[in-house]
Amino acid sequence: MNHSLFTSFPIHDLTLLAIATGPEGETYTKALAVAITLVTVIIFTSAQLFGEMGVRIGLPAVLGELIAGFVIGVSGFNLLMLADGGQVAPWLVSAVQSISGSDPATVQEIFSGPIRILTNEYASVGVGVLLFKIGLEADLKELIKVGPQAATVAVAGVVLPLAIGFFGLTTLFNLATVPAIFAAAALTATSIGITSRIMQDMGVLNTQEGKIILGAAVLDDILGIAVLAVALGIAEHGTVEVSSVLSIIVSATIFVLSAIALNKYFGPRYINFLSSLKNPYSVLIGAILFLSIVALIARAIGLEEILGCFAAGIILGNTKATKALEQACDPLVALFATVFFVTIGAKTDLSVLNFANPESRVGLVIALFLTVVAILTKLAAGYVVFTKVSVNRLAIGNGMVPRGEVGLVFAGLGAATGAVTGAVNVAIVLMVIATTFVAPPMLRWAFARNQKPLQPTEKNSM
Amino acid sequence: MNHSLFTSFPIHDLTLLAIATGPEGETYTKALAVAITLVTVIIFTSAQLFGEMGVRIGLPAVLGELIAGFVIGVSGFNLLMLADGGQVAPWLVSAVQSISGSDPATVQEIFSGPIRILTNEYASVGVGVLLFKIGLEADLKELIKVGPQAATVAVAGVVLPLAIGFFGLTTLFNLATVPAIFAAAALTATSIGITSRIMQDMGVLNTQEGKIILGAAVLDDILGIAVLAVALGIAEHGTVEVSSVLSIIVSATIFVLSAIALNKYFGPRYINFLSSLKNPYSVLIGAILFLSIVALIARAIGLEEILGCFAAGIILGNTKATKALEQACDPLVALFATVFFVTIGAKTDLSVLNFANPESRVGLVIALFLTVVAILTKLAAGYVVFTKVSVNRLAIGNGMVPRGEVGLVFAGLGAATGAVTGAVNVAIVLMVIATTFVAPPMLRWAFARNQKPLQPTEKNSM
Repeated sequence: MNHSLFTSFPIHDLTLLAIATGPEGETYTKALAVAITLVTVIIFTSAQLFGEMGVRIGLPAVLGELIAGFVIGVSGFNLLMLADGGQVAPWLVSAVQSISGSDPATVQEIFSGPIRILTNEYASVGVGVLLFKIGLEADLKELIKVGPQAATVAVAGVVLPLAIGFFGLTTLFNLATVPAIFAAAALTATSIGITSRIMQDMGVLNTQEGKIILGAAVLDDILGIAVLAVALGIAEHGTVEVSSVLSIIVSATIFVLSAIALNKYFGPRYINFLSSLKNPYSVLIGAILFLSIVALIARAIGLEEILGCFAAGIILGNTKATKALEQACDPLVALFATVFFVTIGAKTDLSVLNFANPESRVGLVIALFLTVVAILTKLAAGYVVFTKVSVNRLAIGNGMVPRGEVGLVFAGLGAATGAVTGAVNVAIVLMVIATTFVAPPMLRWAFARNQKPLQPTEKNSM
Repeated sequence: MNHSLFTSFPIHDLTLLAIATGPEGETYTKALAVAITLVTVIIFTSAQLFGEMGVRIGLPAVLGELIAGFVIGVSGFNLLMLADGGQVAPWLVSAVQSISGSDPATVQEIFSGPIRILTNEYASVGVGVLLFKIGLEADLKELIKVGPQAATVAVAGVVLPLAIGFFGLTTLFNLATVPAIFAAAALTATSIGITSRIMQDMGVLNTQEGKIILGAAVLDDILGIAVLAVALGIAEHGTVEVSSVLSIIVSATIFVLSAIALNKYFGPRYINFLSSLKNPYSVLIGAILFLSIVALIARAIGLEEILGCFAAGIILGNTKATKALEQACDPLVALFATVFFVTIGAKTDLSVLNFANPESRVGLVIALFLTVVAILTKLAAGYVVFTKVSVNRLAIGNGMVPRGEVGLVFAGLGAATGAVTGAVNVAIVLMVIATTFVAPPMLRWAFARNQKPLQPTEKNSM
């Protein structure tokens, strides 16, 4: 089930939630059921529509879902209320009211209360399952083969954007330390999903470049999520205390290394045990159970549940049930991660980037700065790759550019903790959109530039 | 996503749900995340454990999950609080408290508030997806082949238990009209899942008897869910008004017949449209979207959302994407329907059946009465089958006996509406358990009694 699990993400600001019973209970329950169903229809209709439009013009569906969120959320028609102080569109309130026979005040309260809890909770399930699946897909064995080259690209691809981003944001834009760290952390992400999809379409997944890119992207996920854990820790404390940062870095490192070790020694045994059970679905339920326990351990030692979800995926990767688990996660990701991406869009208030307002113009400049840093630092990371073989360094750098869904996870969590607000948050989302938008054509161009025919290192086995 | 959708089921008694913000928000959110994760661990650990034990002694996993609910719920360790006025076990409160750094009052409030909402909502998603899948699997073409025979069995298998059950409960036990109708309605269910599983194991799925049983079970689902809609309508009004009952019967009939008609004319076209979309997962998301819309229509015309879920499955059955949709529903059913079955057990207060208390002994007598009626009426239905060919009538009747998951849906909804309380509710659950428990050996015995070798009507194609 992997419910939510995130400290500050899902139900931020929720401090009092009282339940009372009374004669009006039945109307309330009916209105709630109608509202939930209508919101479901709105989220999935918009996600389908804009996701399809995105795919048709060559963009990842996830960008379309984000835009669907802009349209139905606070920047658009106000059909979801996910932050304090908003109002849901009057026609939606009327619709719920007339179908359920309720009154406007009750319906508004339903949108600001339970609908908000449930939407955020479903989004949390989505991001948790998504990270579990990314962990499952992180092929540690394959990673070791291209280890040194991938490691140099990944480390450079994390250190360069983090350092340059943080330095630029604090000196050029006078940003406070916490939002600057968060925005810089968002620059470190790489979307393994988008990159691998493009390379698969181009048939270059098994070239030397393709393997280095994938290996670096996996390492980047591991490093990036550790960076995220540190950034969230800092955001939670509100200040940067060297001792607490060090303690988070140490525990995150131990946590991830333990997961890698457990992948070898525990993962296959646990899967064998689950496979020996006679109850159908034992493997899936056992995996979700394990995911919940690892998330709980992460929380108990002061890390984020999201790191636990990822670590659980790492541990259960490369077993005989991994493929089946990935497939079982697909419908969950399809439904719940869609809710996650749509809600990120819905929460992003684009009106803070009003051109007419000089103050908000700064947000656009920050977005531009983040985008340039995001692209240039990953391209630079491609050039530090440590190898004697001649490789297409431009292609490698380009492969690391799209931030995609991983960047959006950073943006969503940053906004949810309150560490990043207003224009900076919107700037991060725009940077993710821009990098994801430019990456596919750039990657195609970089691979095409390579005049000599690409040398697959082995028969295409994908 | 198919959230909940059920009028009275998910969040009964929820009339006020206020959200406030404050400095303690972060601790609250952390405690909530920890509580959600712990509850997830508890539900799935118990479901795995007892489900596995059930399967190992030859019972359906669903019975094990029900028993898991007895153990963790109000009849056992009180680890879930799903009804008013309960208290969660102190050790669980302490655990959440110590991991999250919260206080006991906050944690109790989290269990009685958001955890209860989320658990009920996940259970609702489970029953919705389950009914959607049962609808998908209802092979209308196959049904037409054994139509007349299956129809006689199904109609007799609904009318006999409904009439005898209602008559017995009101005259022998002086039960009020509403709970008597509900309990009698629960007697009409047939578990297509359990019956088909047993017959598949025995290799008799393609015999004449097997086909009649499956056809009758499908028709039984359709009739039974219409009966359920009527019973819920009556429960909602609190009284039996002939005009409102007639109106529900008419709209439920039109609704189901429309679904059957749309299966031919709309289902394949919608699936073709979804398949033509380029966005991956379009078919699944489009199906869930459709499910939500049909549920909303059901609600808008005064029927239950659950009937909408089932009708949506009927409409999208027998298309080129049906198999893929069934597979995509599997992980959702595995996770969410498990929550549903565990919560039914968790809500069932077995202590009302205390032998020492003469009043509660009546509950046991009712359970016994329901079980006897449940078995005898379905056996009788097997003997009214209208066919010139010699068939094993005992086997057909036996095939209709297990109430399984469908019976539990009746029990769960009856309890949630408040139509059925205390001993009667427990009696229904015990009847479901008893019929599901005795069906597998009885069915094996009935088929084995048939001395002549079974004549498969065609090559085994399952």
